[in-house]
Amino acid sequence: MFDFEFHNPTRVIFGRGKESVIGAELRQGGASKVLLVYGSGSTKRTGLLDRVLGYLSENSIQAVQFGGVVSNPVLSHARRGVEIAKNEKVDAVLAVGGGSVLDEGKAIAVGALASDDIWGYYTGKVPEAALPIYAILTLAATGSEMNGTSVMTNEETKQKYPMKSSAIYPTVSILNPELTYTVPPDYSAYAAVDAVAHVIEGYFTKDGGPVLQDRFVESIIKAVMETSRIFMEEPDNYDARAEFMWAATLALNGLTLTGVKGFSFPNHMIEHSLSAIYNIAHGAGLSIVIPAWMKWYSRSHPRQFERFSQEIFGVSGVGAGIEALESWYRGLHAPVRLGDADIPAADIDMIAANAHDTGVRWGIGDEYPVSAIAEILSLAT
Amino acid sequence: MFDFEFHNPTRVIFGRGKESVIGAELRQGGASKVLLVYGSGSTKRTGLLDRVLGYLSENSIQAVQFGGVVSNPVLSHARRGVEIAKNEKVDAVLAVGGGSVLDEGKAIAVGALASDDIWGYYTGKVPEAALPIYAILTLAATGSEMNGTSVMTNEETKQKYPMKSSAIYPTVSILNPELTYTVPPDYSAYAAVDAVAHVIEGYFTKDGGPVLQDRFVESIIKAVMETSRIFMEEPDNYDARAEFMWAATLALNGLTLTGVKGFSFPNHMIEHSLSAIYNIAHGAGLSIVIPAWMKWYSRSHPRQFERFSQEIFGVSGVGAGIEALESWYRGLHAPVRLGDADIPAADIDMIAANAHDTGVRWGIGDEYPVSAIAEILSLAT
Repeated sequence: MFDFEFHNPTRVIFGRGKESVIGAELRQGGASKVLLVYGSGSTKRTGLLDRVLGYLSENSIQAVQFGGVVSNPVLSHARRGVEIAKNEKVDAVLAVGGGSVLDEGKAIAVGALASDDIWGYYTGKVPEAALPIYAILTLAATGSEMNGTSVMTNEETKQKYPMKSSAIYPTVSILNPELTYTVPPDYSAYAAVDAVAHVIEGYFTKDGGPVLQDRFVESIIKAVMETSRIFMEEPDNYDARAEFMWAATLALNGLTLTGVKGFSFPNHMIEHSLSAIYNIAHGAGLSIVIPAWMKWYSRSHPRQFERFSQEIFGVSGVGAGIEALESWYRGLHAPVRLGDADIPAADIDMIAANAHDTGVRWGIGDEYPVSAIAEILSLAT
Repeated sequence: MFDFEFHNPTRVIFGRGKESVIGAELRQGGASKVLLVYGSGSTKRTGLLDRVLGYLSENSIQAVQFGGVVSNPVLSHARRGVEIAKNEKVDAVLAVGGGSVLDEGKAIAVGALASDDIWGYYTGKVPEAALPIYAILTLAATGSEMNGTSVMTNEETKQKYPMKSSAIYPTVSILNPELTYTVPPDYSAYAAVDAVAHVIEGYFTKDGGPVLQDRFVESIIKAVMETSRIFMEEPDNYDARAEFMWAATLALNGLTLTGVKGFSFPNHMIEHSLSAIYNIAHGAGLSIVIPAWMKWYSRSHPRQFERFSQEIFGVSGVGAGIEALESWYRGLHAPVRLGDADIPAADIDMIAANAHDTGVRWGIGDEYPVSAIAEILSLAT
C-alpha cells in the first residue's frame, strides 16, 4: 500500500429524469449566465437541449449556446468557446453530452479565467482556477463526469494530450441512464471497451498495492461485461444502462488507483495517436491496442495476467485471458486489428513516433521507445 | 439500481508520517486557533499529542486542548467541549484519535455554531453548519473519518443516537497506518468486526440494487478478513494495517450504498442499546448481535445469505455462512453470546425496549417490534 491523497469533490445526482434539477442546482451554486456546451445532432434531436433551456429559464438563468463539439474534441473549437465565454462573461459552464463535450467544457472553463492560451495547460502548465463546471451526461464511458481530467486534440500538430487539475472536477454531474438509451450500438460498445480500459491500465502496470484495489477493478470489469451484454440487446434496459453508467464513472474517478503506485497508461498513450491521426473512436482504438499490448507486456509481466484470466474469465494461464478479452471485443463488434479500422500497417513507424512523443510527456518514454511501440502495433496487424 | 446522490468532499491524506502536514493543512484552510480533541491515555503516551502540538505551533496555530473523550462518547463531555469551543472562539476542531474522538469532535463542531443544545441534533434536527473538522486517525474502524455521521450516548437517558449532516464531513482526514500499531489486540479485533458490520447491514437488508455494490462489499469483507489475520499476529505489519485502514474507511463512506434502497441498520440499532446500557465496545456488541440477527433474518430472507456463504467463505447454504462468520468472530476472541460480555439474559426485554425506541426513530419500528428484538437477542444466549 503506497501513500496517496484522495479528494473527489464532485456531487453526483443519479437517476431517472434528474436533469430537471439542473436549473435549481445552478441557481443554488450562484450562477446566473452559463455557457451551454453540447455536441452536434443528438442533443437537439432528442429534445434534451430544449428541455434543458426550459429548466434554465424557469430559474432565471441565461444560456449562451455553444454547440458543435466533435468526438475527440479539437483545440480550435475549444478556443472559440473560450472567446465566447469571455465575451459573454458567463459565470459557469454547463456541458450536456458525453465525455468529449465534458472535456471541451472543462477546457473552456479553464480558458475563461486564463490570460494565456489553453493549449499550454495540455502541455505542462497546471490550471489553478476554472469556472464552475456542471454536467448532464448522455454517454457513459470516459469518467470525465467525476474526475479532474480533460483530453484535447490539437488538430494542427496531431497531438492528443490530457490536462489534469483539481480545479476541473465538475461541481455537479447529473447522470440519468435513460439519456443513454439512444447511444448507437457502435458507441455503446466502445463505451464498454473504454470503461474496462480505464481500470486495466493501472491493474496491470502498477508496482504493487492492496489486493482490495484489484478486487474493485475486477468488480467493475464484471459489471461492464454483464451489463453490456444486456444493453447491446435491449438498449432501453434501465438497470443495465444504470449499473454500467455508475461502473464507468467509478472506473476513472480515482478510487481504483488509491494506494497503488508506478502505474501508467501505455494503451491510452498509443490509442491517443490512433484517434488523433485517424479520428477513430477512442474505444475502437483501445480494442485494437489492448490485446496487442497485452501480448507484448505479459511476456515480461505474467503474474497479474494469470490473476486476470482466473478472476474475470475463469480460465487458466496468461494467454487465455487475453484471448478471452479479444473475443469479448469481437462479440461487441469492436475492431481488434489495425486493418479493421482501415489503418495501414505501413503507418506503424509514424504512429509509434507520435505515441512516443506522448510517452515522453507522460514519463514513460524510456519504457516505451519507438521500437517497442512499433513492435506492439505489429502485434495488432 | 435506485436513484441516489453521492457527495463526499473529505480529502484523505494517507501514508506514513502524514500527521506532520496537519499544521500546514490547517493554516492553508484558514484556521488560527483549534480545539484539539483527544481521548485519554494513548495519544499522550505515544508522544503523538506532543508532536501534533509541535506541528501546530510551527504553523502559528493556537491549540486549546480538550482531552478525556471516552469510548462510546457521552453527551455531558461533548457539552463541555462546546462550551470551551465557544468561550475560546476556536475556528476549527482537530480530532486526534479513533471514531469516538472524531464523533465527539463533530458534535463540538456543530455545537460551537449553534445557539441550542447539541442533543437536539441527535434527536431530529439536522445541523446546517459546523466548524471545519480536521482529523488524525489512530484507530481504523468506524469510518467517521470520511462520512457525515456522529454517534453520541446520552448517559442520563441511556440513548445512543446518530446525527447525520453534510456539514460534518471532515475537511481533511489524515490516515497513517503506523499510528494503529499500538491499538490493543481486543480493539484491533473489534475494529475488524465493526468494519465488516458496516457493509453487511446494507448488503443483507436492501431491496435490490446493482450487483456491483455486492461485489464492492465482498471485496471489503475479504480485505478485512485477510488483513486482520495478519495484523492480529504482527501488529506492526504496515501493509496489513494500511489495507485494513482504507477498507474500513470505504466500508462506511457512502460508496457501498450508492444505487441501493430500503436498507437499514438493525444490528447497529440493537448494538447501540448494548453499548449504551453496558458500555461494552461497539465491535464487541456487534459480534454478539450479528449472528443472532442473521439466524432470525435469514429465515425470511435466505437469498443473499446463499450468495454470502459462497462468495465470502466458499461454502454452500444459508446457515453455513453464518456459522463461518461466527467462527471468524471466535477466532478474533470477540464475544458471540450475551454471556460472553456478562450481559444477563434476564435483561433481554429491557434491552429490546431500548433498541425498539431507536428503531422507531430510524423508521424500522414496525419491522422490529419489541418481541422480534427479544427473539433475536434470545438467539444470542
